[in-house]
Amino acid sequence: MQKYLDIYFDTNKKLRALQYAMSTIHWDSNTEAPRGCFAQRGKNSAVISELVYKLSTDKVYIDAIKNIYEQREKLDPVMRHEIEKQKCEVDKTSRIPMEEYIKFTELLENARQMYFDAKAKSDYNLFKPYLEQIITYNKNYTVWQQTDKLSGYDVLLDEYEKGFTQKDFDNFFNVLREKLVPFVKKVTSKKLKFNDSWINAYFPADKQKEFSQYLEGVMCFDLNRGLMKESEHPFTLSVDSTNVRFTTHFYENMVASAIFSTIHELGHATYEQQVDPALNDTMSGGGVSMGMHESQSRFYENIVGRSYEFWQRHYPKLVETFPNELKGVTLDDFYKGINLAECSLIRTEADELTYALHIMIRYEIEKRMISGEIGVEELPKEWNKLYKEYLGVDVPNDKMGILQDVHWAGGTIGYFPTYALGSAYASQIYHKMSQDIDTKKEMGSENLKQINLWLKDKIHKYGSTMDPKDILKSATGEAFNPNYYVDYLINKYGKIYDIK
Amino acid sequence: MQKYLDIYFDTNKKLRALQYAMSTIHWDSNTEAPRGCFAQRGKNSAVISELVYKLSTDKVYIDAIKNIYEQREKLDPVMRHEIEKQKCEVDKTSRIPMEEYIKFTELLENARQMYFDAKAKSDYNLFKPYLEQIITYNKNYTVWQQTDKLSGYDVLLDEYEKGFTQKDFDNFFNVLREKLVPFVKKVTSKKLKFNDSWINAYFPADKQKEFSQYLEGVMCFDLNRGLMKESEHPFTLSVDSTNVRFTTHFYENMVASAIFSTIHELGHATYEQQVDPALNDTMSGGGVSMGMHESQSRFYENIVGRSYEFWQRHYPKLVETFPNELKGVTLDDFYKGINLAECSLIRTEADELTYALHIMIRYEIEKRMISGEIGVEELPKEWNKLYKEYLGVDVPNDKMGILQDVHWAGGTIGYFPTYALGSAYASQIYHKMSQDIDTKKEMGSENLKQINLWLKDKIHKYGSTMDPKDILKSATGEAFNPNYYVDYLINKYGKIYDIK
Repeated sequence: MQKYLDIYFDTNKKLRALQYAMSTIHWDSNTEAPRGCFAQRGKNSAVISELVYKLSTDKVYIDAIKNIYEQREKLDPVMRHEIEKQKCEVDKTSRIPMEEYIKFTELLENARQMYFDAKAKSDYNLFKPYLEQIITYNKNYTVWQQTDKLSGYDVLLDEYEKGFTQKDFDNFFNVLREKLVPFVKKVTSKKLKFNDSWINAYFPADKQKEFSQYLEGVMCFDLNRGLMKESEHPFTLSVDSTNVRFTTHFYENMVASAIFSTIHELGHATYEQQVDPALNDTMSGGGVSMGMHESQSRFYENIVGRSYEFWQRHYPKLVETFPNELKGVTLDDFYKGINLAECSLIRTEADELTYALHIMIRYEIEKRMISGEIGVEELPKEWNKLYKEYLGVDVPNDKMGILQDVHWAGGTIGYFPTYALGSAYASQIYHKMSQDIDTKKEMGSENLKQINLWLKDKIHKYGSTMDPKDILKSATGEAFNPNYYVDYLINKYGKIYDIK
Repeated sequence: MQKYLDIYFDTNKKLRALQYAMSTIHWDSNTEAPRGCFAQRGKNSAVISELVYKLSTDKVYIDAIKNIYEQREKLDPVMRHEIEKQKCEVDKTSRIPMEEYIKFTELLENARQMYFDAKAKSDYNLFKPYLEQIITYNKNYTVWQQTDKLSGYDVLLDEYEKGFTQKDFDNFFNVLREKLVPFVKKVTSKKLKFNDSWINAYFPADKQKEFSQYLEGVMCFDLNRGLMKESEHPFTLSVDSTNVRFTTHFYENMVASAIFSTIHELGHATYEQQVDPALNDTMSGGGVSMGMHESQSRFYENIVGRSYEFWQRHYPKLVETFPNELKGVTLDDFYKGINLAECSLIRTEADELTYALHIMIRYEIEKRMISGEIGVEELPKEWNKLYKEYLGVDVPNDKMGILQDVHWAGGTIGYFPTYALGSAYASQIYHKMSQDIDTKKEMGSENLKQINLWLKDKIHKYGSTMDPKDILKSATGEAFNPNYYVDYLINKYGKIYDIK
């Protein structure tokens, strides 16, 4: 056993070091590296990726994992969970025919390129043949990875949120379809009256940055173990809990964009900073899943960051930062402005209320795409039909419709549903948190220390030492229940829009 | 042959990729990484260094180098020079007893720590036992690496500036001792009269940054292949010619510091950006030696950047940037202020005229340290004696004397002389350049395009495809000649200080 553990730990040390290098290079590339170096960077990154691939597929390493797995009852629970995950990854990798994998990697390079072309020209037909091959690969993948428990779309869903199947998501989206869709129709048929003059007014970037720094303080982000920078598309990068970075952006004619990008990314970053530091030298550090990560960013962004209590406390600071820009704008005007609900076309610009319906549409399409019920030919029509049905909007072109998201071009099918799941997790967590602490009071406190502490203790500290569904259950005392989400939305928007 | 070349190129590709990763991590650490991540970074960097070490000492790789070396007549001159260098490195490494190397690496970790302690307490005795061991290792090193051509201190000098021996440096410093020392005495006995009110006045950092950006333009620094940032100690980092970064610092009560740090680092950076891009995928890219690199940074900083012609053109821009701060300060006041000569104690703060004398002192001490003529016990006394003799100053304590530089604590003996050599190279290059182009006119041009072009064509483009002495000879038509340096200084300072 010890022999195998030595091999396992030694290889992991190398993998983590190379991962650390790749993360630093990624951060650098996305925040400041000069454009002219990208070709050389590409070459060097490819070599490092190859080193990672060779290390992680080395026979001696794989054998060590298999041998440790055989004797896993001897391990402590954290290490046991880790080795089970690793064994599962090893098995999955071994089931992919190497030549198929190489072909798929090449396909993606071209598909991405063509996707951006097609989007620019708003012409789905350009991208269609690539998407068809991507779907075929994903279908084949579900066959290679089929087990007695998982088949078809379930295989893909499990990749991005372990333990969640079509049955779970069907149940989730059925609740949304039944309760949320009619509610959204009611809300969006009303017009909210308030002073909206500030929404697209000019707010200088340097002052926006100052306010984002203020938000770092409110969220107790530890600058000794992290930093904020700017990039076109905000993102969070965590190397380990001592090294967590995020970016935001400043649009001078859209002040809310920076505020909520900052809070959203700080949500991801807080999760990462609060993982037990003892996990930094293991393969069980970092957030557990896409869905759980998104639940944290959305908890902070929407439940806290778009709450009346939060702005009751912090709006005076915003006014202090922008005394001229916010002259005559009341807290109520601001609160309504950041909680406007509108049926729109673009997912990434959707508001808190309607967001999940965009995901529901993608889920239905993916499900039928993988089952073979609809082919690439029918996708845009189906897309447009569902947008009309659930959101009541007419899709004018492919760019604003089927081509709006890059995910499929990146080869990922089954990823979208985790976005909606994240919001729903957040509401369930909020419900439970409010039984333990006075959440509303804490949202209106000087800082979010108490909320952070609750989340650290119930979720963050565990990193990925358990499956997401087990963390959710241990944190909230029950399995995933989508009703908290719908109840939360109906309650919040019912008040704002005065709907009984 | 092809088999060995394949191994050689393949390993180099990996080494360059890991070097790229280490450079990016280094840049990140020195410019923005949060302090709290340093422990984890240390662990990961150590693993990457170990990977580099294993790759570069792998028997198959070494055998490939040896085999290619045997057949080197078949190679083109660039590749032949590269393999000769690599073979030389391999031979050197093989002559170091592994256990001695490991002991030395450990020694350095402690020595560095203790050096900083000793410096803080200004107590040489704390550092002395470590320095003694460092000297012993270096002495042993000269024995291990002894050849029929090189022995003693020569071995160390050759490490940092290939092809330069004690004979060369003795000749160089003899010229300085004879001609420069008496001249410096004359200059520093005079007092320059001018308006010096601005020298330590307040100049806001953001405006200083704006002027540094202006200097990037003047020096034609390609921002598509490079970037400027801030750090306490300015430095330049070049991954390859497409990715060249430098830092500067802004002291609000010392405006000249940022200006000359920026120009100095831009000198290093220009060298790196102008290396033939075809060398990016070889082991012959990048500047050729410490001396040659320093010659470029000092050429731009001193010969160009402290010239009257340069400021005749750019002083109006400086005044435009600091209209209040420079009110009543004439071009002549500014020119005199940036060319003040003073006998001082600290090398890094020395001016253009006296700088090399600080190096001369270190050279004499190192030479006698390695020959065994003086022991660690006598070093401070000897140091203080030489400072009195050449610079006429009394050293008040160890901190401002023997402990001022970190180099010896880092294990490097034989490195200092390259600093003075760089300045001397620069003058020889300046002399030759002025036969080809109207250098003074170009220094006063809108930008330094023509000067850059000359240096690119004669020096930069070659990267490290030749030895430094061969590059110098091919660029200037003659071997190293220290008289150009002394003549340049006497001419320049004779005019400023009105000395015939």
